[in-house]
Amino acid sequence: MNQIAFKPIGIIRSPFKQPKGTPIQPTAAKGVAGSIEIYDEFVEGLKDLDGFSHITLLFHFHQSPGPLLLVTPYMDDTLRGVFATRAPRRPNPIGLSTVRLLSIDKNVLQIEDIDIVDGTPLLDIKPYVPRFDLREDVRCGWLRDRMERLDSTRDDGRFAQ
Amino acid sequence: MNQIAFKPIGIIRSPFKQPKGTPIQPTAAKGVAGSIEIYDEFVEGLKDLDGFSHITLLFHFHQSPGPLLLVTPYMDDTLRGVFATRAPRRPNPIGLSTVRLLSIDKNVLQIEDIDIVDGTPLLDIKPYVPRFDLREDVRCGWLRDRMERLDSTRDDGRFAQ
Repeated sequence: MNQIAFKPIGIIRSPFKQPKGTPIQPTAAKGVAGSIEIYDEFVEGLKDLDGFSHITLLFHFHQSPGPLLLVTPYMDDTLRGVFATRAPRRPNPIGLSTVRLLSIDKNVLQIEDIDIVDGTPLLDIKPYVPRFDLREDVRCGWLRDRMERLDSTRDDGRFAQ
Repeated sequence: MNQIAFKPIGIIRSPFKQPKGTPIQPTAAKGVAGSIEIYDEFVEGLKDLDGFSHITLLFHFHQSPGPLLLVTPYMDDTLRGVFATRAPRRPNPIGLSTVRLLSIDKNVLQIEDIDIVDGTPLLDIKPYVPRFDLREDVRCGWLRDRMERLDSTRDDGRFAQ
């Protein structure tokens, strides 16, 4: 199993200075403003991105202390397989959040609905496209009966160092 | 800029032996069956995943010859910033596809609607959850008027080695 090396294309800025207290999903962080600073060498790749209202960010869960295969997720009280959750302590700690894109000025993107800790290294930006990304007739396993907890749940620090 | 090292958690099996001819999105690959072999050391993390009908795969575009900041996407005839596209030649070549999960037997997942080349290294699996992942009132920039090309477009090898 070969290692694959990635390096950040920029850094995410947000009001959340530590995992504890951070919203656990963008849809539980409505209106929370932040920004992205893209490193100069990648700015050319932002061309045409301003036509999209939403962007999907892939980022490094850089504060994850290491992987766990079983975790008790924020919205549950039971040990679950980590791949059946969005918990940060994954074998490859890559986060996925779709946020609202407000504007782009040179290398700085203003974004909203952000559930990401300040200083998080950004790996990729993809345009959010409903025709590519939306699914219907979806079954949501253990999460189905726990959705009412989403808006009131914040990171309580359980996955931090 | 520190490098971040990831390693595959498994391998994706599909009918597509090379990029050329592969559907360019899962929604253009309806009913195409494939599978995932998870490496033994990660199988415990699959617990509870079978309750979900759809899973989001993060994978390594291992056949990408290297990054480009401007690309002509499959569905267009114009150079676009790579971050405004889903093209594989990204600074961090990470692919994102949401596929249908049919069944899990030990370390093997049967999946459907697959737009991924056979042998692709898998980095992560996340449950697809509409309350987390669905957005409304979306603007799709350059893609808006090109959606009718989706079903008829296949990878023509333009991003391969």
